[in-house]
Amino acid sequence: MNIPEYMEQVGRQARAASRAMARADSATRNRALLLIADAVNRDSALLRAANQLDLKAARVAGLAPAMVDRLELSEAAIATMVEGLRQMVALPDPIGEISNMKFRPSGIQVGQMRVPLGVIGIIYEARPNVTVDAAGLCIKSGNATILRGGSEAINCNRALAAIVAEGLAGAGLPAHGVQIVDTIDRAAVGAMITMPQYVDVIVPRGGKGLIARLMKESTVPMIKHLDGICHVYIDAKADIAKALPIAFNAKCHRYGTCNTMETLLVDRAIAAAVLPRLAALYLEKQVELRADPEAFAILAAADYPHLAAALEEDWSAEYLAPILAVKVMAGIDEAIEHINTWSSHHTDAIITEDYSDALRFLREVDSASVMVNASTRFADGFEYGLGAEIGISNDKLHARGPVGLEGLTSLKYIVFGHGEVRS
Amino acid sequence: MNIPEYMEQVGRQARAASRAMARADSATRNRALLLIADAVNRDSALLRAANQLDLKAARVAGLAPAMVDRLELSEAAIATMVEGLRQMVALPDPIGEISNMKFRPSGIQVGQMRVPLGVIGIIYEARPNVTVDAAGLCIKSGNATILRGGSEAINCNRALAAIVAEGLAGAGLPAHGVQIVDTIDRAAVGAMITMPQYVDVIVPRGGKGLIARLMKESTVPMIKHLDGICHVYIDAKADIAKALPIAFNAKCHRYGTCNTMETLLVDRAIAAAVLPRLAALYLEKQVELRADPEAFAILAAADYPHLAAALEEDWSAEYLAPILAVKVMAGIDEAIEHINTWSSHHTDAIITEDYSDALRFLREVDSASVMVNASTRFADGFEYGLGAEIGISNDKLHARGPVGLEGLTSLKYIVFGHGEVRS
Repeated sequence: MNIPEYMEQVGRQARAASRAMARADSATRNRALLLIADAVNRDSALLRAANQLDLKAARVAGLAPAMVDRLELSEAAIATMVEGLRQMVALPDPIGEISNMKFRPSGIQVGQMRVPLGVIGIIYEARPNVTVDAAGLCIKSGNATILRGGSEAINCNRALAAIVAEGLAGAGLPAHGVQIVDTIDRAAVGAMITMPQYVDVIVPRGGKGLIARLMKESTVPMIKHLDGICHVYIDAKADIAKALPIAFNAKCHRYGTCNTMETLLVDRAIAAAVLPRLAALYLEKQVELRADPEAFAILAAADYPHLAAALEEDWSAEYLAPILAVKVMAGIDEAIEHINTWSSHHTDAIITEDYSDALRFLREVDSASVMVNASTRFADGFEYGLGAEIGISNDKLHARGPVGLEGLTSLKYIVFGHGEVRS
Repeated sequence: MNIPEYMEQVGRQARAASRAMARADSATRNRALLLIADAVNRDSALLRAANQLDLKAARVAGLAPAMVDRLELSEAAIATMVEGLRQMVALPDPIGEISNMKFRPSGIQVGQMRVPLGVIGIIYEARPNVTVDAAGLCIKSGNATILRGGSEAINCNRALAAIVAEGLAGAGLPAHGVQIVDTIDRAAVGAMITMPQYVDVIVPRGGKGLIARLMKESTVPMIKHLDGICHVYIDAKADIAKALPIAFNAKCHRYGTCNTMETLLVDRAIAAAVLPRLAALYLEKQVELRADPEAFAILAAADYPHLAAALEEDWSAEYLAPILAVKVMAGIDEAIEHINTWSSHHTDAIITEDYSDALRFLREVDSASVMVNASTRFADGFEYGLGAEIGISNDKLHARGPVGLEGLTSLKYIVFGHGEVRS
């Protein structure tokens, strides 16, 4: 296969299909989603058989067990996919919404219309459920999409692509509205991220290394998620009854998620009161605490067994593990400064009963999600009420934080005129 | 001067200053704008003297007369700069606006807050008025900015930078809130577009060649304007009394602007009626018409003297001159297809009295501004009521079309919690 030629064809087909996708009305796009849901349900045995081929090859190739786990398409995962598609149908259609139409002194009336972005390229790991989720979100938002899943899932992705194509055809939508990149050659990724004439945005989902590489090479704008170095700052005026469960939940609810707290900041005025009680909670989960000298002294005095001295690199570590960096702060100024310096600008929270500190933190912390008295674990499209999520963005432009259907759309200006000319 | 080291320092200073700029309240930012306006007014003689140095050097260097014109800072241009700054003061502050705060089933209340982007890098030609306009827009929107104007304006830009710094200091804002790149070495541009750690967005203003080059090299997101290949489509159901003045205004109001019509599309059903009457208008301005065979036959029969046969390259030409491509269409489908194929997605208009055609055109034409019965010349930040304009974006992500203060901001999620944890 000549990869550049193949990708050129895929791109051209996607661009052509994107016009019909954008034109399709809500009912048509929803019909496609329901047909795909039904077909996934109907063909679940076939999908699992295809997945077995992938799993077998992956085991033979010695893929890491965690990767094999993600590759597996269990019956439960299939049911979740089907349910996800049906829930998307129920979401409001973002497309076509007209807002802010205002008359101008010239006589024209100007406002904005929400429209699809066009062609979305999605690059992701060997997780077949993403194939259907991402296809569904793009169909719902009127976009054409090119899906490039991890090569280990190729058999399952091919089977899913056939189902998606059947659903599109059944609804009268173009077959190229959703395409998978049907090659395991990595050159396909390089081609995909350098054809801005066909692809309007790339959504990379995967490890930090992959995304950092794509950032360097891509000439197509990206909606990307890099890392989650999230903070909880327990202010001098914190209600300890709120601080303890939040600091525990933010760290221990799940270790491997991007909205998990990695650094705990505690105001000096409250550190001696709050740290030993928090340590008692973390002890249950055997969380390793990497503490600055002040926090270390307090925790050592409380005989916390899993204690280490923090090094500078701990302030920028994304542990994704039962490890937590802890630092004592002189006050909110230092806390905001620490967060704006070390945070990955994903999600940061303050625990406080002080009105002015709460407002300052909300305004001055430069992160995609900033919270008062809530666990960082809430930073999530479903928890925020977006209904569905294509990813979480670390970017400031376009979509910031959890990205739902709206992030896959754009606002264009529209003008209702009555014969006006400019003088 | 070691350019990489110098730009690293400029970047670091900008990032540090951006926090104070973002924190500053509306009154402080407005006070800086007024102080700068007063100082520009006070020092106009000094500014003109600095400008004379630049003009003299430019003439010696043999700069093209059009470039010399743009470089000149006339008394009128200074008055316009001052007035522009004072008008910015009157604009609503975009920063801090909180929207859509909604309670979720978990108990948290989630919405969004509008915040500055951080550091804006602006790369522009030798036009000293842009220095003050751009600085003003960034101050108003709470951003720090790095300005890199054309090297031919260096003396004038230095004088303006001193005035801006004085205004910032007078309002208690950091001196590095606005920095000019104080070197004519072009390597500074290369450094500026590859330091995403310090610069959040690049706004390039200048020729298509410059911007195309920056697009290839920049690792910082850009809000960019490439070209304006704008269309007017006169539908079969057009009111000729509207079509004639709009098609004339869209071409002849100004030739050199990006929202000027470059291609006229006319429905076959109305072409014989409308083209000769339009030709009579264009004749006054000696507009050259490059027509497809059908339009050519009609215009030749009307003895239009400045007539040529269109070549394929005319459909993608940005003439910026009294030249117009003309093509007869079989109907609205062909018109939308032609525009979506050849347009630069800047601004396109339909002239029609047909309700369904108007709606289809608004929805299906994939351009930043789509108009019904109005001249494309209205695609402009001031005409749209944005109050001020940093540029016009051809991009789909983030800001599309005329970009005002809001385009220099970002929405972050904020969460009001009451002790909630995720279960």
